[in-house]
Amino acid sequence: MTLSPQHFKAFEEIVGEKNISINPSTLSVYSYDSTRTEILPSCVIFPRHTQDIQKIIAYAYTHKIPITPRGAGSGMSGGSINEGIILALQKHMNKILHIDTQNLCVTLEPAVLNASLNNALAPYNLFFPPDPASASFSTIGGNISENAGGMCAVKYGVSKDYLLSAKLVIGTGELIEVGHKTYKDVAGYNLLGLVCGSEGSLGVITELTLKLKAKARFEKSLLVGFSSLKSLADCSCAILSSGITPCAMEFLDTLTTQALNSRFNLYPTEAKAILIIKLDGNFEPSLEFEASEIEKICKAYNPLSFEVAKDKQEEERIWFGRKNASQANSIYGVKKLNEDITLPRSKVADFLERVQEISQKYDFPIPCFGHIGDGNIHTNVMLPSLSSLSEGKEAIKELFSITLSMGGTLSGEHGIGLSKAPYMPLAFSSTHLKLFAQIKKAFDPHNILNPHKMGFDPS
Amino acid sequence: MTLSPQHFKAFEEIVGEKNISINPSTLSVYSYDSTRTEILPSCVIFPRHTQDIQKIIAYAYTHKIPITPRGAGSGMSGGSINEGIILALQKHMNKILHIDTQNLCVTLEPAVLNASLNNALAPYNLFFPPDPASASFSTIGGNISENAGGMCAVKYGVSKDYLLSAKLVIGTGELIEVGHKTYKDVAGYNLLGLVCGSEGSLGVITELTLKLKAKARFEKSLLVGFSSLKSLADCSCAILSSGITPCAMEFLDTLTTQALNSRFNLYPTEAKAILIIKLDGNFEPSLEFEASEIEKICKAYNPLSFEVAKDKQEEERIWFGRKNASQANSIYGVKKLNEDITLPRSKVADFLERVQEISQKYDFPIPCFGHIGDGNIHTNVMLPSLSSLSEGKEAIKELFSITLSMGGTLSGEHGIGLSKAPYMPLAFSSTHLKLFAQIKKAFDPHNILNPHKMGFDPS
Ligand SMILES: Cc1cc2nc3c(=O)[nH]c(=O)nc-3n(C[C@H](O)[C@H](O)[C@H](O)COP(=O)(O)OP(=O)(O)OC[C@H]3O[C@@H](n4cnc5c(N)ncnc54)[C@H](O)[C@@H]3O)c2cc1C
Ligand SMILES: Cc1cc2nc3c(=O)[nH]c(=O)nc-3n(C[C@H](O)[C@H](O)[C@H](O)COP(=O)(O)OP(=O)(O)OC[C@H]3O[C@@H](n4cnc5c(N)ncnc54)[C@H](O)[C@@H]3O)c2cc1C
Repeated sequence: MTLSPQHFKAFEEIVGEKNISINPSTLSVYSYDSTRTEILPSCVIFPRHTQDIQKIIAYAYTHKIPITPRGAGSGMSGGSINEGIILALQKHMNKILHIDTQNLCVTLEPAVLNASLNNALAPYNLFFPPDPASASFSTIGGNISENAGGMCAVKYGVSKDYLLSAKLVIGTGELIEVGHKTYKDVAGYNLLGLVCGSEGSLGVITELTLKLKAKARFEKSLLVGFSSLKSLADCSCAILSSGITPCAMEFLDTLTTQALNSRFNLYPTEAKAILIIKLDGNFEPSLEFEASEIEKICKAYNPLSFEVAKDKQEEERIWFGRKNASQANSIYGVKKLNEDITLPRSKVADFLERVQEISQKYDFPIPCFGHIGDGNIHTNVMLPSLSSLSEGKEAIKELFSITLSMGGTLSGEHGIGLSKAPYMPLAFSSTHLKLFAQIKKAFDPHNILNPHKMGFDPS
Repeated sequence: MTLSPQHFKAFEEIVGEKNISINPSTLSVYSYDSTRTEILPSCVIFPRHTQDIQKIIAYAYTHKIPITPRGAGSGMSGGSINEGIILALQKHMNKILHIDTQNLCVTLEPAVLNASLNNALAPYNLFFPPDPASASFSTIGGNISENAGGMCAVKYGVSKDYLLSAKLVIGTGELIEVGHKTYKDVAGYNLLGLVCGSEGSLGVITELTLKLKAKARFEKSLLVGFSSLKSLADCSCAILSSGITPCAMEFLDTLTTQALNSRFNLYPTEAKAILIIKLDGNFEPSLEFEASEIEKICKAYNPLSFEVAKDKQEEERIWFGRKNASQANSIYGVKKLNEDITLPRSKVADFLERVQEISQKYDFPIPCFGHIGDGNIHTNVMLPSLSSLSEGKEAIKELFSITLSMGGTLSGEHGIGLSKAPYMPLAFSSTHLKLFAQIKKAFDPHNILNPHKMGFDPS
């Protein structure tokens, strides 16, 4: 679709000529995200503030013009690309407005980068815990809209656990303020919870207030090698059941461990699975106590190795493998189809066995790693060539079916967007999909906000 | 309204004659809750299982018969009373179905009492943290529907933080399963978050799975007396900013302290405000460390007294005042209008000053106490006689206006129901109320589920 000159002019009057573009090279920059799917928008607008966004959406509502908010475009499910207008927030709406050390919260514009926020908070010894691996280049608005989490989710939760309030421009151009700077709130329906993870389809977040945490003074990292994924998975459950909540609890499967060993020679060669744990807290002896409790628990699962980092250097070495896991796995294929399914923790070992069956059936290596602490597994179907793409997608559909049959969910982090939309009917009944559509309609009666996403029909 | 014989018969066929009643004494039992408002239902039905509820609601949907789910009827906002049918869940739907120690969760029917659940979990060293003061007689379904919290919310959060999945019969009689037994889930809109705190207006929860926590091995209680509410409030903020998160952080204001002293002689007579803190954890030295850190922080606010409980007996004495606060305040009047407003923590001291002004203006004592750790204040307008009721309500309206002007919310715990419905337009714009109405309509197109509540018009 193209934007008529009359519409273009109307938007230009709102934001000024510098803040709107139909220049082909600009359109191209905003035509993809981290899924590498491409959709050329018809126009990119760079709003300056909430009022711009209200006017833009009110106009788009009247004229039924599709409009898609975009943070950094780092999303993994095609959420920030679309036809029509891209509302690019990063140019202007990137300011931290108020760090409130008494209420432990921060008010900011949506396109502040996660890492910039944490840099600004560091002098106050505060932090915003959700830590997606994309923290250095993704925006808080995008994190909240995808309900992003990271390695620390096992202890600190995900983005939705931190949103206290938001200014939201809904699909009519009306502005609502949702939530309060309070730690409890039961007045009215929980709209705030609904906005988190809504992938830009219910409104544009133009300002938000986030809960913060005080940074723990000490950290301690541990690495445990196991002879099977099953013992690693069972041991992880046992650690969490004991009442210890590590701030990170990650795993690497056999293929990933081998890939890393072949390049960096990091782990005992017999290790079939690696568990990496980080503890944090304000009282150092308590971390030592927890580490020794973990060692006791691990013993019952016959670990091949057990290390506690003694200094920063050892800690870095321990985490080196996890941080390079994705890249190391590139030896297994030329194209990676990675998903982020999530399972009840107790099912992870069974699931990984089923992954092996699928790997054999399709003859694609499927190395897995990720957040064992919350059952969130990155499955990577590695294709030998681009021509195997449709077969790869078949394999993924099977992975999804197994996940769902084990009580898991299609996505723990990356959202549905375009990429997982086709699989939604596997996971949801027609009643669910109808409810999603009606909620969408309540916020966005003309279906202009990031339309045709998330796998339901809002018409 | 009365139920026609034909409708009665249809319901009787579903549940059997033993499980339906229009007996006046039964109706009377189900005509009130803890607000002491009375509405006589036309019929009480005791469903046996999910299928009963599906059939009952499908029939009620077709014939537009109002139907209100009810747990223990302990709610503080009139949520479980209504015209039409009361769906009384406590008789049959009160079973714990599965305690899952690997995934740290429990699956249960909705009318299990909070305390019964925790008793059943104790042998596994697990617990369900939300701890409303009504825990011993309120149901989990009611807790989730009100999004109840308790003293431990400052560390452990509220009911919504623990709901992993639910079976929900919506207003058409359709059953949906919402959520998964997973610790992360971003597929589709967050319906689970919406159901929490929806006060029985979006569907009947017929089964739920809750996250659990391992019980901490040690606890330590502290009591600090202050010469002003301002120093208590500031000191509380300082403690939380330091990175210590107590598992309870409660306060008593001057009137409450005096009322308790006049009966039990508990605190230093000069104390104008009392702070009570509980710490918990698995490593005892760490609690000692935190207690000494708290002592250091308190010093800056000139406490009149600082005690750390040395044994169970001292701990009980420390908590005795807080537990008897409500009752002790009865010396101030014959009728209590208590609210549960919540403020940004930093505003609590200013708010309590404004409460004094209102108290003087209306000449009603207004003792306050509650959850200082999350800014959730129980304000108790004490009336000298029932004839001052309408003046008392005026005072409350002013309290609400002040709360809202300070960025707070009408309710931190008890919900809107009938009691706070008239105040909703103070807190929400017409756009909010329209969104609430449309969400309600999506789940309950004929407006039969607990209709005419929560202060918006769903027609
Ligand atoms: C290398 C890499 C690693 C990653 N690691 C993780 C990880 O560990 N954990 C994890 O959870 N995720 C991870 N992600 C995905 C993560 O979801 C995104 O990086 C991030 O949350 C998106 O932020 P963004 O600013 O780029 O948003 P975009 O990609 O621009 O947008 C994402 C969605 O949010 C919407 N949106 C953006 N801003 C707003 C707003 N202000 N109002 C309304 N809607 C808005 C968009 O319309 C779109 O639907 C990773 C991504 C990459 C590329
Ligand atoms: C003495 C006392 C102390 C209290 N202390 C606290 C406190 O410290 N913190 C706090 O947060 N609250 C507190 N409360 C209020 C608290 O909200 C309720 O006690 C409790 O949550 C309600 O549970 P119930 O089973 O009695 O529900 P009910 O009162 O029967 O119902 C409450 C609401 O939930 C709905 N409902 C019930 N079951 C279902 C279901 N299965 N599906 C759908 N909807 C359902 C009802 O329709 C109604 O709207 C207190 C109440 C009392 C009386």
